Amino acid sequence: MRTQVGIIGAGPAGLLLSQLLHAQGIESVILENRSREDIEGTIRAGVLEQGTVDLMNQLGVGTRMMKEGHFHEGFELRFNKKGHRINVHELTEGKYVTVYAQHEVLKDLLDARTQAEGRIFFQVSDVKLQGIGTYQPKILFRDNQGEPHELNCDFIAGCDGFHGPSRPNIPQAERNEYQKVYPFGWLGILVEAPASAPELIYANHERGFALLSTRSPDVQRLYLQVDPKDAIANWSDDRIWSELHTRLETTDGFQLIEGPIFQKGVVSMRSFVCDPMQYGRLFLAGDAAHIVPPTGAKGLNLAAADVQVLARGMETYYRTGKSDYLDRYSEICLRRVWKAERFSWFMTTMLHRNHEHSSFEHRIQMAELDYLTSSRAASLSLAENYIGLPMAFE
Amino acid sequence: MRTQVGIIGAGPAGLLLSQLLHAQGIESVILENRSREDIEGTIRAGVLEQGTVDLMNQLGVGTRMMKEGHFHEGFELRFNKKGHRINVHELTEGKYVTVYAQHEVLKDLLDARTQAEGRIFFQVSDVKLQGIGTYQPKILFRDNQGEPHELNCDFIAGCDGFHGPSRPNIPQAERNEYQKVYPFGWLGILVEAPASAPELIYANHERGFALLSTRSPDVQRLYLQVDPKDAIANWSDDRIWSELHTRLETTDGFQLIEGPIFQKGVVSMRSFVCDPMQYGRLFLAGDAAHIVPPTGAKGLNLAAADVQVLARGMETYYRTGKSDYLDRYSEICLRRVWKAERFSWFMTTMLHRNHEHSSFEHRIQMAELDYLTSSRAASLSLAENYIGLPMAFE
Repeated sequence: MRTQVGIIGAGPAGLLLSQLLHAQGIESVILENRSREDIEGTIRAGVLEQGTVDLMNQLGVGTRMMKEGHFHEGFELRFNKKGHRINVHELTEGKYVTVYAQHEVLKDLLDARTQAEGRIFFQVSDVKLQGIGTYQPKILFRDNQGEPHELNCDFIAGCDGFHGPSRPNIPQAERNEYQKVYPFGWLGILVEAPASAPELIYANHERGFALLSTRSPDVQRLYLQVDPKDAIANWSDDRIWSELHTRLETTDGFQLIEGPIFQKGVVSMRSFVCDPMQYGRLFLAGDAAHIVPPTGAKGLNLAAADVQVLARGMETYYRTGKSDYLDRYSEICLRRVWKAERFSWFMTTMLHRNHEHSSFEHRIQMAELDYLTSSRAASLSLAENYIGLPMAFE
Repeated sequence: MRTQVGIIGAGPAGLLLSQLLHAQGIESVILENRSREDIEGTIRAGVLEQGTVDLMNQLGVGTRMMKEGHFHEGFELRFNKKGHRINVHELTEGKYVTVYAQHEVLKDLLDARTQAEGRIFFQVSDVKLQGIGTYQPKILFRDNQGEPHELNCDFIAGCDGFHGPSRPNIPQAERNEYQKVYPFGWLGILVEAPASAPELIYANHERGFALLSTRSPDVQRLYLQVDPKDAIANWSDDRIWSELHTRLETTDGFQLIEGPIFQKGVVSMRSFVCDPMQYGRLFLAGDAAHIVPPTGAKGLNLAAADVQVLARGMETYYRTGKSDYLDRYSEICLRRVWKAERFSWFMTTMLHRNHEHSSFEHRIQMAELDYLTSSRAASLSLAENYIGLPMAFE
């Protein structure tokens, strides 16, 4: 089997890349180890940057998003029992935060790929990369029947997430990996209830961080900072609600609306960057190359930014035969990646209670929140990062 | 002996307070343990916020500053061998950074106090505070002849620096002290040479921080990050110049002008805040209440902000008999103090190389510099802090 670009992974990076290449007349094949039902059924958060929304629309896959997504003009920082609204819309001269779940984005992209008769192999196994240092790389894999295949291609895009098989193919000696594991976990719940607030609320409370977000008019998503090693069994529904009420309390009578909790789980938090994001004919994109903690919601958006640079590089290559731009893929992406890593680290550090911190550092954290919400320049800096820094193609 | 306000310390806080009170018809006496010659002869840096400059002018002590001070429209952040100018003047719509040494400020204030026949006792010793919890506090001290005195007053202003006798009079149980000691020292030199650059340069280099500043057209002040425990004997002039050349090097041919080094020394760096800054009839101001690391040059400016709030409280008290405002002195000051502490901590953290940091944290630091110098909002946030956040009287 042959294609121009072999894509490993049908997450946001892989699907967006495939759709972008298709728009430019470049053929690709996607290999994915999960089933389509599994991908579409895994409920995941989604706060889309303006640039990601623009990309979805440009690719013709934004219709449902524009209809069903929620366009927030701002968000709230809550501390010392007071809410402080960051008016993103006004600060950034008209931009929105679009709340549209990641699995909905994936559904729309899978539909578009299917309609365009794009080739996707689901439930593949034994994925192996070969010859990435040559001009004829290939991907070996087994299909959902266990049959072995060989996919010959010009380029391989590793869009297979943090634990995927692509990244280890960059020789260890050529790879710099940067990592931070946070002493925080997020206990997330899905609740059948109407929204308690029209916009997201990020709360710094002495008992820890809490986040109130929404999935749909009937389903709410709430998070609590917990010990990352804490077992979900320690968290009865009653304890979760009690903690949420405490951490989200305000002096002006905010009411948290309860409802049946139909899903709960604890996730750990890390920052990770692989430099470079390319080696020979292998290009990493999205979580395969970098991880951010969820505070600030940059994960999906970074993937969308990566693949725009990658698609441009491939388009230039097929049009001109020159790889100068592709050679700079990693360099171009990493500058923006590190800024998003900085923002995600900053939001995480500012909003969580860290029991390893001194009382001085805690007061600095509170001063940061006070400054951010009292200075227009600082609020704008927060807003422009939240909405997404400009794409950088050079 | 009797006065309205007994002021301990003839540094920036004590002298500015005395002059402010004088302008409002309130009498004070200053007790200072050093000699006037010593105070005027200790060469110290001075980067004045616009608000401090305004205060000096308002008090009628700004004439020489406006003539001999240097008005900088910006400063430079230097990293990866490139300079990035922060155009403070343009960003803040017309404000300046005024470079005018602290000992010159003190000379001007001492002259003004002397002209106004303000009472200052130099070279006092054995300073003791009594009755700060009563309406008749007093200060016991010995004058420069060793003669004992008792100064009865309505209020005591502790403007006696970090090591002064005032702060310990706030009972330990009532006092929260926040502190951070940095693993950095500054090796500072004074050099007879013309300026190498028209504005200050803050450099982050892999070998450590360097700061190029100016004292006068013929005298330059330069600093190098060193181990705070390092002995000055380890630093020959040759080694200092070699290190400065390395850390300040650019790809576009910056030339560092050398000259005879006539003073050198190493200082350590800490952040410190005492909360509350008042107890009974004792009010702390300036370094007696809070210390910032020198990065960002906030020390003198914070002292100037404190005493403006304090003078306003005392004026209100003597005019109306009400102490409501004075009772809120600490609360009003600390909100601004913590923001300046945050900024000084941020500048220090961003510009120094910390060998305790992971490679991830180091890359975050470089991303911070990249973001700060590429986003107008972030540059403005930096500039507004550098020039001084607005005074807050409520």
